[in-house]
Amino acid sequence: MPPSETFRDAALIAVDWGTSRLRAWLLDPRGGVLAEAASDDGIGKVADSHEAVFSRLAADWPSSTPAVMAGMIGSRQGWREVPYVACPATASQIAAGVVRFDAGDRAVAIVPGLVVRSGEGDVLRGEETQIVGLIDGEPAFSGLVILPGTHSKWVRVEAGRIVGFQSFLTGELFDLLSRTSFLRHSVKDDGRDLSRSPGFAPGVRRTAIEEQPFLATLFPVRVRQLVGSVDPGDNLAYLSGLIIGGEIAAARASGRLMPGTPIRLVGSRSLGRAYRVALDLVGFPAETRDGDELVRVGLVHLARVAGLL
Amino acid sequence: MPPSETFRDAALIAVDWGTSRLRAWLLDPRGGVLAEAASDDGIGKVADSHEAVFSRLAADWPSSTPAVMAGMIGSRQGWREVPYVACPATASQIAAGVVRFDAGDRAVAIVPGLVVRSGEGDVLRGEETQIVGLIDGEPAFSGLVILPGTHSKWVRVEAGRIVGFQSFLTGELFDLLSRTSFLRHSVKDDGRDLSRSPGFAPGVRRTAIEEQPFLATLFPVRVRQLVGSVDPGDNLAYLSGLIIGGEIAAARASGRLMPGTPIRLVGSRSLGRAYRVALDLVGFPAETRDGDELVRVGLVHLARVAGLL
Repeated sequence: MPPSETFRDAALIAVDWGTSRLRAWLLDPRGGVLAEAASDDGIGKVADSHEAVFSRLAADWPSSTPAVMAGMIGSRQGWREVPYVACPATASQIAAGVVRFDAGDRAVAIVPGLVVRSGEGDVLRGEETQIVGLIDGEPAFSGLVILPGTHSKWVRVEAGRIVGFQSFLTGELFDLLSRTSFLRHSVKDDGRDLSRSPGFAPGVRRTAIEEQPFLATLFPVRVRQLVGSVDPGDNLAYLSGLIIGGEIAAARASGRLMPGTPIRLVGSRSLGRAYRVALDLVGFPAETRDGDELVRVGLVHLARVAGLL
Repeated sequence: MPPSETFRDAALIAVDWGTSRLRAWLLDPRGGVLAEAASDDGIGKVADSHEAVFSRLAADWPSSTPAVMAGMIGSRQGWREVPYVACPATASQIAAGVVRFDAGDRAVAIVPGLVVRSGEGDVLRGEETQIVGLIDGEPAFSGLVILPGTHSKWVRVEAGRIVGFQSFLTGELFDLLSRTSFLRHSVKDDGRDLSRSPGFAPGVRRTAIEEQPFLATLFPVRVRQLVGSVDPGDNLAYLSGLIIGGEIAAARASGRLMPGTPIRLVGSRSLGRAYRVALDLVGFPAETRDGDELVRVGLVHLARVAGLL
């Protein structure tokens, strides 16, 4: 059966193209998944042209199906630089900032990121699409959307509008501290689920409840193991708790986290669970949403508003 | 002229042997410097035996002159592991913890580090000797001694006794953030003196005066350059200000920094100046002391108490 026969319902390719990963879904007109593909060709690693990399990934799919893409693919280092849209922004305003061009027979659209120009300013690329996906499913949602990761984002949503956000280096800092800094001698990744290890909650409490300044909590991670003989696997959980708790404390200090604020946590597996456990400890229960699904739904929503679907 | 003739007054070799550097001074009985030597054979890099490395460095000096050593050379990875002395501690108590052994014709003594066992605990190795040197020159000093570096130490001294201390990862964190994290794309080390660059003071103010949580201040370093087009060289000064200001804020939060506390800053060149500028901004004037001189004076003091001189 030739591809054109297999995928005769194909209407859109939704693409999440970040710094380290490239994922794509072939969708029917209602957003149903016909096929999916993924590779490690994040834009940080693409040696070939972006067009060649994408053509390879989608080789088995119809060559004329339009593609809508979100993430760092729209940055200066991406396929086409897509100017940021100013925040506050609605899904329509984001769709209006989409950059469209042709690649062979295919129409390609890249979604813009968002910029906050007030205060210290902030930027994001990719998360706007997940938020659009979340708003698509919960149009009346007002509250906080937390997207943990290398650079965690805390996004404020009010009735269909993204009104502001704040970024934290949490994931990157955790990697640097646990793998590169001298703390690496005191922690060990033995594959355990960190938020289920006994050290995690005391770490969260240290920074988020006892409100110890984050910078005062790091050297003691070494001392716990050197003097206190704490198990290095559990000490990694403690360090994770310190950092996630520190992020929560910092977000609370800037007024983004208040009692009763509805919270959606966009993540899956262990990282999402770790944030949920930490937020619970601090008294902020959160509902979890699947990030992959949100990005797909968001891309379909934006493609529709932009007239690609 | 044979070495024995040149150095007939040699009474002691004082050695500061840390993770990245090895420095030694050949001293006369009053602590006067007859010769000095240095190499990059920090204990983190020693491939050969410590004895061989030291013999090479001191090859031109009398082989029977006793040597007194401070720093990571007394750690588990050093020449001999020297157990920590419990804090509070006086110079005499530190001298009592010295470990002595012979290396060929030479008597070698290694100074112990200090451990705090109360609270979260803490450890140091090497700085105790600088504090002994400071107390040697100012026996009545009571106040804070700040020793900036890879792992900054804030040491409380009361009339000849080291009563407590707190460690911060400041220098290491600055290196990781500016050279390895994604912030490296937004900062540049162009050789400028950071504390004299316009961005330094606003960085210090952000964390130490406006008391922004440190973790909330990092992503904006990227945004300043990406959106605000700040010069990357000055942005490095801003990052330095944030981190040093964050350390000061964290030390203040733990009650170690109070109005009127006499402060000695042990450092030289640009790092010492940066801390002095930052402390001045926050309203805590500090007097600077030369770290090399303090470690030498401290080693002579301890060698004398321990009966090596």
